[in-house]
Amino acid sequence: MNETPTASYSLTIRARIPDQPGMFAQVAQVIGESGGNLGAIDLVDVKQGYKVRDITVSVGNEEQESAVAEAIRKVPGVYVLSVSDRTFHLHEGGKIEVRCKRPLKTRDDLSMAYTPGVARVCNAIARNPDEVYRLTIKSNTIAIVTDGTAILGLGDLGPEAALPVMEGKAMLFKEFGGVDAFPICLNTKDVDEIVRTVKNIAPVFGGINLEDISGPRCFEVEQRLQNELDIPVFHDDQHGTAVVALAALINALKIVDKPLDRIKVVICGAGAAGTAITKILLHEGVSNLVVCDIKGVLSHRNTAGLNPMQRWLAENTNPNLEEGSVHEAIAGADVFIGVSAANLLTVNDIRRMNRDAIVFALANPVPEIMPEVAAPFVRVMATGRSDYPNQINNVLCFPGLFRGVLDCRARSINEEMKIAAAHAIAQTVGENEISEDYIIPSVFNKKAVSAVSRAVIQAAILTGAGRETGESSNEALPAYAE
Amino acid sequence: MNETPTASYSLTIRARIPDQPGMFAQVAQVIGESGGNLGAIDLVDVKQGYKVRDITVSVGNEEQESAVAEAIRKVPGVYVLSVSDRTFHLHEGGKIEVRCKRPLKTRDDLSMAYTPGVARVCNAIARNPDEVYRLTIKSNTIAIVTDGTAILGLGDLGPEAALPVMEGKAMLFKEFGGVDAFPICLNTKDVDEIVRTVKNIAPVFGGINLEDISGPRCFEVEQRLQNELDIPVFHDDQHGTAVVALAALINALKIVDKPLDRIKVVICGAGAAGTAITKILLHEGVSNLVVCDIKGVLSHRNTAGLNPMQRWLAENTNPNLEEGSVHEAIAGADVFIGVSAANLLTVNDIRRMNRDAIVFALANPVPEIMPEVAAPFVRVMATGRSDYPNQINNVLCFPGLFRGVLDCRARSINEEMKIAAAHAIAQTVGENEISEDYIIPSVFNKKAVSAVSRAVIQAAILTGAGRETGESSNEALPAYAE
Repeated sequence: MNETPTASYSLTIRARIPDQPGMFAQVAQVIGESGGNLGAIDLVDVKQGYKVRDITVSVGNEEQESAVAEAIRKVPGVYVLSVSDRTFHLHEGGKIEVRCKRPLKTRDDLSMAYTPGVARVCNAIARNPDEVYRLTIKSNTIAIVTDGTAILGLGDLGPEAALPVMEGKAMLFKEFGGVDAFPICLNTKDVDEIVRTVKNIAPVFGGINLEDISGPRCFEVEQRLQNELDIPVFHDDQHGTAVVALAALINALKIVDKPLDRIKVVICGAGAAGTAITKILLHEGVSNLVVCDIKGVLSHRNTAGLNPMQRWLAENTNPNLEEGSVHEAIAGADVFIGVSAANLLTVNDIRRMNRDAIVFALANPVPEIMPEVAAPFVRVMATGRSDYPNQINNVLCFPGLFRGVLDCRARSINEEMKIAAAHAIAQTVGENEISEDYIIPSVFNKKAVSAVSRAVIQAAILTGAGRETGESSNEALPAYAE
Repeated sequence: MNETPTASYSLTIRARIPDQPGMFAQVAQVIGESGGNLGAIDLVDVKQGYKVRDITVSVGNEEQESAVAEAIRKVPGVYVLSVSDRTFHLHEGGKIEVRCKRPLKTRDDLSMAYTPGVARVCNAIARNPDEVYRLTIKSNTIAIVTDGTAILGLGDLGPEAALPVMEGKAMLFKEFGGVDAFPICLNTKDVDEIVRTVKNIAPVFGGINLEDISGPRCFEVEQRLQNELDIPVFHDDQHGTAVVALAALINALKIVDKPLDRIKVVICGAGAAGTAITKILLHEGVSNLVVCDIKGVLSHRNTAGLNPMQRWLAENTNPNLEEGSVHEAIAGADVFIGVSAANLLTVNDIRRMNRDAIVFALANPVPEIMPEVAAPFVRVMATGRSDYPNQINNVLCFPGLFRGVLDCRARSINEEMKIAAAHAIAQTVGENEISEDYIIPSVFNKKAVSAVSRAVIQAAILTGAGRETGESSNEALPAYAE
């Protein structure tokens, strides 16, 4: 695990410190010595002879949390009053809530929002079902659906343990896209059950975001739901990653000045993300593309033991019938995209790539090769991490994408809409701003959201997936901002 | 339909009115003549020679809405700029939203609320499943589940048309009980499917409120869900009504000074509400109780064609084996409780009741007998309406009840907890305040919520249904208020 101090291991330590010169410096020194990174320092109380302070400290892991507190306790004269873990504190009671958008203070409010007035609204929807979009939350509400089988990099932890992630995702939807998202964590892993359950609860929602469902079930769940529902269904682990990776690749190729249809791309990892990245790159025009999984290069010469999705990949990639492991396939590649495992590549692998190599090492939290190791031999490097340049982060895609599909009432999300989103993200970085260290905008660049939403609406209308022009979209955005 | 002007038929009319003496009076006069009730009058703009005003008008039905606007248009010199229906306006875009409880403005916020920090919280829940209550929204979140088959008095309008009611209910949960409630409108009427779907989505929720599901399916859905889930399941149309009716009866009997175990009660309507009222009264000690449906008195002598629930009613009520219709059964009754149909009773029926008759005519919007008609022959009268005294309204029960079960993490809601809720509501009206016109508190009496929640927690602990003492309950309440 990564040992760099991070806010995810962040403590607030309340300590009583004698009011003598050099005392706080001693505390700061032991924090540093025990691996902690000093953050905010708040003054809580001043008494004769001492000060009470809240000291925020980031560390790299849970062991360091105790080490830091212990070290402070040992400073003579200092008394630790409390230690609280900021991450756990932030999660207490959950991170989202349901709020009223209208007042409910008087009898008149009640009789309009509830009985008897609401009956008129129900009747209006029963007469004209399309009115559900105008008169209810459906037009701005999506479900974030998971079965808890592929939570982050942690695997199958079950639906309850998935809920903090889904709440966090709901926060991102709201904060970045103004979308009301509600977590649905399913107590089943059966594909039929998942499909049936989501169809049964669909009337309230204007879209479905599938999340952290393990492959290959995720492919079937998405496909069947999209076929059977008239609202868009989007598996973010597949397509969110693919859209943002394509955006980054578009800009990276501008730097090395290579055309997309002439490059060799090696993708390592044939799961949800690897499959979706492959598909979007093929659709965008990459022709020489090789996919590797743990057993080596996928090839239509040898499809024994492959699931249907892997077989599709084998049959639609690897035009030169390459064989062997990823270490062989990478020879002569212009682009490597890893969605696989930590430290899979060595410097020797990278050295065998074509000149001006582009490496997206997206395994989390530890990439396929660390940027500082690869640096001498690559021209452009991206990871999934926020502490290196060029972070490939789905947050750049899903809020704007769902903002767009909701605003144009799209029935589905097709490949054209995803590609439009990728180009919109890429263009958020101006032609004269692009550099090896800046191929993709920051997640806090709010221009990305409106650019993606506009592009998605346009592509939806052009391809017939949208039902409305969504012209209100961009005026609506500021109103959602806090 | 009721023709009394009400806020549920409420217009905002923007009109330009010449600035001459008596002009507004003319407008006000035609509003009254066309059946409208003048509400707020706002000044929007003043120009040379005229004023622009927003005039709020309540009417009794949709025809009167057009009549009022038309009448104003005909006043010489007055120009109607716009007419908007306030009830529909209030529903536009829906009435609830999902909001972040924590900020998400910086990279540190992101890495604590989402990846990578959230992984620590997921792992903590995976290690100790009970932590889901402390670290997620589950502890304060319930699902409002409907299949749209029995929406208010409107019948089966489907799941989309049910959504405005469920949103309104979610507002009441939040505003009165501080409970986060999310609407789940199911695209199925099949009992097995409903049960399976709710079980599948249960991990996120601390409780299930069933709503507007038609009988007799509602009984089976509730029973099976409560048996198979470890969170409380509550069909509000049954038990909410029963709890508040019992509360009202407890206070009404104090006025007429009759003991509960010596009275004769006639209940008309053997659906969800009638069944639950019967059960709670039997549990509370009423012994002479007769249930009627459209075919007459239920009796264990004749159970042909009855569904299992009606058969149970037939076998557990009507100790004197009465026969005939409700008009016969009502003879000598001390209490009549109607949950059936408009204008079912006549003055002659009421006249045959025992002295100091108590009549709860709960059919909505038009009761079994209008209070002004029944008045000379009853001592205490209650309805479901807000425009007469003694409104029997579920809002007095469900917010406090769910506040209580969430705070003590109850596994289920048993009869003792419902009865405790009823007594808590009854006691909200002080002994020296009780009168024929005041047997039940107003829906805006917030004392009811905390009284119900305290009583429910106590009963849950005593009966073993609660898991926590819920001591934080009452401190928590003010924080939820807006």
